[in-house]
Amino acid sequence: MSILTRPILEINLNNLVANYKLLQQLAPRAEAAAVVKDCAYGLGDILVAQTLYEQAKCRCFFVAHGVEGAKIREVAPDARIFVLQGIGEDSLDDFISARLIPVISSKEMLAFWKEHKIPGIKPAIQIETGLNRLGFREHDLAQMNHEDLHEFGTVLSHLACADEKDHFMNQHQLDMFIYLKETYFPKLEATLSASDGTFLGKEYQFDIVRLGAAMYGINTAPYRENQMKPVVRVKAPVLEIANLPKGEFVGYSATYRATSNRKIAIVSIGYGDGIPRSLSNTGKVFFNMCDKLHEARILGRISMDNIICDVTDIDNLQIGDMADIISDYYTLDDIARDAQTISYEILSRVGKNPRYFRKIKYPEVIDF
Amino acid sequence: MSILTRPILEINLNNLVANYKLLQQLAPRAEAAAVVKDCAYGLGDILVAQTLYEQAKCRCFFVAHGVEGAKIREVAPDARIFVLQGIGEDSLDDFISARLIPVISSKEMLAFWKEHKIPGIKPAIQIETGLNRLGFREHDLAQMNHEDLHEFGTVLSHLACADEKDHFMNQHQLDMFIYLKETYFPKLEATLSASDGTFLGKEYQFDIVRLGAAMYGINTAPYRENQMKPVVRVKAPVLEIANLPKGEFVGYSATYRATSNRKIAIVSIGYGDGIPRSLSNTGKVFFNMCDKLHEARILGRISMDNIICDVTDIDNLQIGDMADIISDYYTLDDIARDAQTISYEILSRVGKNPRYFRKIKYPEVIDF
Repeated sequence: MSILTRPILEINLNNLVANYKLLQQLAPRAEAAAVVKDCAYGLGDILVAQTLYEQAKCRCFFVAHGVEGAKIREVAPDARIFVLQGIGEDSLDDFISARLIPVISSKEMLAFWKEHKIPGIKPAIQIETGLNRLGFREHDLAQMNHEDLHEFGTVLSHLACADEKDHFMNQHQLDMFIYLKETYFPKLEATLSASDGTFLGKEYQFDIVRLGAAMYGINTAPYRENQMKPVVRVKAPVLEIANLPKGEFVGYSATYRATSNRKIAIVSIGYGDGIPRSLSNTGKVFFNMCDKLHEARILGRISMDNIICDVTDIDNLQIGDMADIISDYYTLDDIARDAQTISYEILSRVGKNPRYFRKIKYPEVIDF
Repeated sequence: MSILTRPILEINLNNLVANYKLLQQLAPRAEAAAVVKDCAYGLGDILVAQTLYEQAKCRCFFVAHGVEGAKIREVAPDARIFVLQGIGEDSLDDFISARLIPVISSKEMLAFWKEHKIPGIKPAIQIETGLNRLGFREHDLAQMNHEDLHEFGTVLSHLACADEKDHFMNQHQLDMFIYLKETYFPKLEATLSASDGTFLGKEYQFDIVRLGAAMYGINTAPYRENQMKPVVRVKAPVLEIANLPKGEFVGYSATYRATSNRKIAIVSIGYGDGIPRSLSNTGKVFFNMCDKLHEARILGRISMDNIICDVTDIDNLQIGDMADIISDYYTLDDIARDAQTISYEILSRVGKNPRYFRKIKYPEVIDF
């Protein structure tokens, strides 16, 4: 028996690189850019960007904010780094020092850019095709003069429903993108799709595909089986095993009451570690013992540091055994379903607590 | 007009210290310990611990993990630092180097401690009184010998329902705590209550109160008006303002459709910044303009970096204006209600994204 207290976050960089390469093969004529915003979806932007730069020869990155781009520049000296939220007074210094490429989404931001142009940088323009988020609408484009239209090096838009293969919005946005691009930016490099759009087929891929969620192992094409390898696994040790007599309550606000005698395990991980509290009384953890897989239902509210689960039927469980929290048999996508959110939100949260013990599997073959 | 892209996290350390002192006055005979686990609920453990150590003379801290305690030791050289998840093989080095006090919750962990005792450290013992989480049950205590019972310096338990003043569990747990303490540890220093329990009255306060959530501004006694000052505010700039024609959709999966012509604002913050995605189509943001407060409903899904909101009725809104995301008029507690979770989870998530621009208000009077 071991006495252990810390949750473990395993990051498999081999699988990250394998996923990147698989997606690259799906879009052989496009440049495969890596989306490393939001700390690389929580995994660590430096770790992910450096791996993709060195092991997969990735030379194009997307971040959300200038401050994120400046960090990536440290490990990707000659890559293009696009900044999706664009440029402003609060990020100008980062753009200059790290030679970042702003994605410009409004005429006001374009005016700002024209006052603060950075020599050698051609910004991207984001155009709105149906998401109704950031981007120039057609009437904005129609009002732009020749000089403004030639300010840009790349034209970008973003799909709203690309995780549903037959959603009417996909074709609608594709048509709109082609129309606006051909009308206003016929010669520009173009990018429409993130991971999910990449799966929709060649006509959605254009010159750059922006690989994020799928590269991190998420199934962004849920209408088919996940082809991605898992990049993240989370485990946490059993701190205590106790009997729960019939009639007793479990956890905050006493939301679970035992209707028969149960055996419970207290596992050392909670919502502070990014496990969604909405899994309370609905999610589960797994124990893989002697190659037999046991499911243990979460009882009561998840707290900041602990999950309590029902291990009545698991005979040989010991203190120090590891519960699988995110695993091959209870994936990010499974958890997202049970927590009523999407895998992206869970991934983004899990990676950010520094108290995880991080086990990082580095690529085995360095062919750089 | 300003062009801005970054969300802002304001941390008011004046109010943190004021809250600590107010809670201290509520429990004048107890030592006021600060709970700084989970990065001080996301705010930054070093920042919070150093402020409380220097400005409020706090000399007792609680963390969840040894690795967290080791960080706190750097700014609190002579404080007591209790570690709630206890000690194990994966944290022993931190306990030795930082002279941490383990909270021991099982006989197995006690056996580990006896093999690895740290000279000069008296561990705490956690006893179970109704939460059915970590802690020795009575039958465990009944089996302990005299020597084991004298191993400890502090006896600790934790309340399950202290945010509900009249919940039957409160009196039940109090009675059980007093009974077990008097039976097995009559002379030991005792601690039962976190912030919420502190509000229940003197009989719940014992020798140490463990101040966490309320100190960070959360209303842990929701049956009365919040007496705490806000410690955290979050704002984010409007990146773009656009017309949304009747019939068009907003955001991922096209979950919102305009039933009339609307005006929308795209605000530069999302679930990557810790704003719960469950606020999609239900939450709101506020604009405080010329001292008039405007509410703007969130439309469609919140994405990783952006929130889209309805600003049809806000006449003078400009790009670069700041949306109040967490504020005095839409508090952490309000957001938690709308997001169907608790303030603790939101606070824990918001503070952890390094891309926030942090504005920290330091205590005005340094009387150290």
